[in-house]
Amino acid sequence: MELLARAKALQALGHDVIHLEVGEPDFETPPPIVQAGIDALRTGATKYTDAGGIPELRQAISRYYADQHDVQVSPSRIFVTAGASGGLLLLTALLLNERENLLMTDPGYPCNRHFLSAFNAEGLLVPVTEEDNYQLNPSLVDQFWNEHTRGVLIATPANPTGSVLTRMELGDLSKSVQAKNGLLIVDEIYQGLVYENQLRCTALGVDDNAFIVNSFSKYFGMTGWRLGWVVVPHAYEKDLEKLAQNLFICPSTIAQTAALSAFSDDAIAVMEQQRTEFANRRNFLVPKLRAIGFDVPQMPAGAFYVYAKLPSSIDSETFCRRLLEKEYVAITPGTDFGFHSAEQFVRISYARNIEQLNEAVLRIERHLNQ
Amino acid sequence: MELLARAKALQALGHDVIHLEVGEPDFETPPPIVQAGIDALRTGATKYTDAGGIPELRQAISRYYADQHDVQVSPSRIFVTAGASGGLLLLTALLLNERENLLMTDPGYPCNRHFLSAFNAEGLLVPVTEEDNYQLNPSLVDQFWNEHTRGVLIATPANPTGSVLTRMELGDLSKSVQAKNGLLIVDEIYQGLVYENQLRCTALGVDDNAFIVNSFSKYFGMTGWRLGWVVVPHAYEKDLEKLAQNLFICPSTIAQTAALSAFSDDAIAVMEQQRTEFANRRNFLVPKLRAIGFDVPQMPAGAFYVYAKLPSSIDSETFCRRLLEKEYVAITPGTDFGFHSAEQFVRISYARNIEQLNEAVLRIERHLNQ
Repeated sequence: MELLARAKALQALGHDVIHLEVGEPDFETPPPIVQAGIDALRTGATKYTDAGGIPELRQAISRYYADQHDVQVSPSRIFVTAGASGGLLLLTALLLNERENLLMTDPGYPCNRHFLSAFNAEGLLVPVTEEDNYQLNPSLVDQFWNEHTRGVLIATPANPTGSVLTRMELGDLSKSVQAKNGLLIVDEIYQGLVYENQLRCTALGVDDNAFIVNSFSKYFGMTGWRLGWVVVPHAYEKDLEKLAQNLFICPSTIAQTAALSAFSDDAIAVMEQQRTEFANRRNFLVPKLRAIGFDVPQMPAGAFYVYAKLPSSIDSETFCRRLLEKEYVAITPGTDFGFHSAEQFVRISYARNIEQLNEAVLRIERHLNQ
Repeated sequence: MELLARAKALQALGHDVIHLEVGEPDFETPPPIVQAGIDALRTGATKYTDAGGIPELRQAISRYYADQHDVQVSPSRIFVTAGASGGLLLLTALLLNERENLLMTDPGYPCNRHFLSAFNAEGLLVPVTEEDNYQLNPSLVDQFWNEHTRGVLIATPANPTGSVLTRMELGDLSKSVQAKNGLLIVDEIYQGLVYENQLRCTALGVDDNAFIVNSFSKYFGMTGWRLGWVVVPHAYEKDLEKLAQNLFICPSTIAQTAALSAFSDDAIAVMEQQRTEFANRRNFLVPKLRAIGFDVPQMPAGAFYVYAKLPSSIDSETFCRRLLEKEYVAITPGTDFGFHSAEQFVRISYARNIEQLNEAVLRIERHLNQ
């Protein structure tokens, strides 16, 4: 966070900062969605909606699961939320009691465990490495599960590592959690941004009882609109409805109405083009990073991050600070995402174009050679 | 909630339901704000913002306090939130520990205590009557405060009663809470909708350490945009910033950009006209209700609700159900807002025009005479 503020400050001072610390796509919201938002405002779509979202949007998301993933999800199980953040907050309030925990990977997106602490529950961090593809697996679940564990919270694609679980790995994980009568909660907010087509899937395809968090922010390019959704098993619908009504009233009506157009052919064409561009950037960046000494054993299959081991023995916070001050390249130290070997790693976002990525690599290389 | 669903169902069946159960203004968002929203979308204001909101909006709210209430509030103390709901959620997470409580009025807005229970804290309900103007006072605070009490959460204007605290009453309440080293949290979401000009004030005018929840939903007519704000003392800024970043990332960028126009002369002219219309409706409705036997001892000074004692000894839930089924008038039983004598009271919203209010009163009268 301090680094983020410093990067902004340096930019304000006129320095040419390259922002590879960012967690949002550099693309604008696709024009068909923006136009639908303008139309929503023109037609007065500014009143409260149902707590779970407008029925048409819940149906559209249901159709999306059927079309894209060949999975049947009743619209009544889909709750539109104030971003994935709102969704995760609702699931935490719904599912976790005080002092209970969920198993989560270290490294992982830090807010996920902060939601749990806000409700006096806990994220039990499981150290994972490149050998685990930075993901949980049945053996880790067995090893770390304790008497207070309610389930696992995994992310696929994951932040900061970009790692993706295969359908088979998801199935095995689901079985191991079911064997413990636990909950499988899956953060799929980077779901659309997977660059190996055989890896595109949803946990709902292997486990109809999985709890899903998804978002219109990343693949759909709607970060500032604050819209996401969750999927829950039938048995939880009523309780979640009440909770959503009490804690949020409803998600943004304008964003919901605009999101109806997010599944149109026009919008999907734009988003697929952006996915191709992300894949190109990844294919450009990872070999370049390897060439200047960073260790990236496996090609990250999704999201828009590379989690790379530093070439030198310097700790990642010092490295990131110096790189920013000397070369005006902002990247994120591993310590923002956990504790396990975190001082040896950095997260580099490729939500910037290839020209900027190229310039950033040149500057990083120069910094390493000094 | 069931009554709300039934009212919708009857309407869907083609019945002419008069909706006096509603909690949102019938007016559209003022055109200058809608236009600013459209402009925001056209210019690509769709990215994440700072967790506490865009600086210009925090400054605009600060100026609003200075202009309208002659109170100085530094923008850094103002956090823009995902509706007042998001604000209250943040304050609860920030201030309350497990098993602690806040004193609240019974009757009161039920979600306020549900936020507390979501975090394993508690709303300690204090029964209030028309003799208390349905508000807390120092003597009630003394009487109900216990070892787990952290402070009070009051609303002025209040829902469901429309009652408003005077500046002097606020000051006395603040002193009694300070004497106990407690927190004063004030829900001011109906602040703009006060119909006696001498009663327009903010708790910040008497207590610079008060925690404030406010909203763009009611006076500013922006319900579906989901935008509100909180004000906290300087000492809490950093913790709240972190919490907002973790739990919400940021409020809707489109709504924030549009809200910049909510303080323009054009928008305020529209909103003041609507306030006059609400006052006219209140002045029309309350005498009519009294004339057909409802007991409304004091003219409600704010919000858009009348909390009225039923003329008959029938319980309020049965009354509301029968009124809806027989006469298609939807109003809310007192039991939705608390426990104290709640079965004798109903809440009637005047967020409908005078013609509809007149027709509703005729139908209610006919129902009473049957």
